[in-house]
Amino acid sequence: MNYLEYLPVWNRLSAAQQRALRSSASERVFHKGTLLHTGAGGCAGLILVLSGQLRAFILSESGKEITLYRLFERDICLFSASCMMNSIQFDIAIAAEKDTRALLIPAEIYKSVMNESAPLANFTNEVMGSRFSDVMWLMDQILWKSFDTRLAEFLLNEAGIEGSSTLRITHENIGNHLGSPREVVTRMLKYFAQEGMVRLARGTIEITDPERLRSCAEK
Amino acid sequence: MNYLEYLPVWNRLSAAQQRALRSSASERVFHKGTLLHTGAGGCAGLILVLSGQLRAFILSESGKEITLYRLFERDICLFSASCMMNSIQFDIAIAAEKDTRALLIPAEIYKSVMNESAPLANFTNEVMGSRFSDVMWLMDQILWKSFDTRLAEFLLNEAGIEGSSTLRITHENIGNHLGSPREVVTRMLKYFAQEGMVRLARGTIEITDPERLRSCAEK
Repeated sequence: MNYLEYLPVWNRLSAAQQRALRSSASERVFHKGTLLHTGAGGCAGLILVLSGQLRAFILSESGKEITLYRLFERDICLFSASCMMNSIQFDIAIAAEKDTRALLIPAEIYKSVMNESAPLANFTNEVMGSRFSDVMWLMDQILWKSFDTRLAEFLLNEAGIEGSSTLRITHENIGNHLGSPREVVTRMLKYFAQEGMVRLARGTIEITDPERLRSCAEK
Repeated sequence: MNYLEYLPVWNRLSAAQQRALRSSASERVFHKGTLLHTGAGGCAGLILVLSGQLRAFILSESGKEITLYRLFERDICLFSASCMMNSIQFDIAIAAEKDTRALLIPAEIYKSVMNESAPLANFTNEVMGSRFSDVMWLMDQILWKSFDTRLAEFLLNEAGIEGSSTLRITHENIGNHLGSPREVVTRMLKYFAQEGMVRLARGTIEITDPERLRSCAEK
């Protein structure tokens, strides 16, 4: 199996470009808890996740952490190879949250192919845009904060009313209650689900960690 | 004068690509206060600043603003053409902070050239990386720095931009920049005034002790 085919633009690379990537990529295993990368200008290389889960976060001087986003199967971690781009001037840390198998592509090889391949450069752009969107979403949460609090409160309140931790309610409906667009509700519920606070199924929302949801509601 | 030469990769584009950009680009003037762009998936086009000053900011539901970054001569505004990239899923607003002359390149033209030009795609990557860095810096400020530090930094930065130690700016306006209520700004400015770092008058803030303000900013 050539895992490099996980790159959506693989077939648009020349034979020589494919060869350069294939001959330099190596499979790695990062055990749960491993810190893969830290600081600015990372040069470990581009990481393509094959299985497992990575977490990208920032660290304050006092050691406080905040999660920026998570990477799952087929996701690409750009910032472990951010030395490729002069303009990236921020510190980020990446750790394995589960045992993770990944393909590591050396930064200078990826960069040299990207420099001559418009498809790979445009794909890289999309990856960066997607991480940028994650960070902007988080920034929104941090700045205006209220929505996660309000949603957590709403879910706990509904569960109390229904006498059940499994709620039969649509995202649209919740949006109506809270005066927010459905998309915003869905996005936040997915975040709650990632954090293990709820489990989402067709037409239902199950509260799986009421304690954490409560602490979120009481922020 | 062909302002498109402000693009650092201009000479690496083919004659046909240069022609496509040149024939579609148009010069625009945005008067101070004009809102150039708002919301996600902007399609106004790519903006290349020729003179003046643009401000990119985000807006909460309640209308609170926070400045993300500023664009000056030769800077490029990507997010007014973010419909070019599917992965960019965040709302941003861009306004002219001074009378601004700019070159507007239609998003679909820029995108079609970028799709086939590795140099332009890589340049665009660098621009995005640079904005991403700005936003990450701001996130850091918001997360870990106390308000006095942020306000001191803001005042010094404004003085640098304006080339004057006397700033014509309202407390309300500063609050919008920093995402804080006016009252909080006023209280902290009074503290700075008591400490002799600034002098407050109707509509102006004069920096009287830049050294101390700087040490406050660097805390």
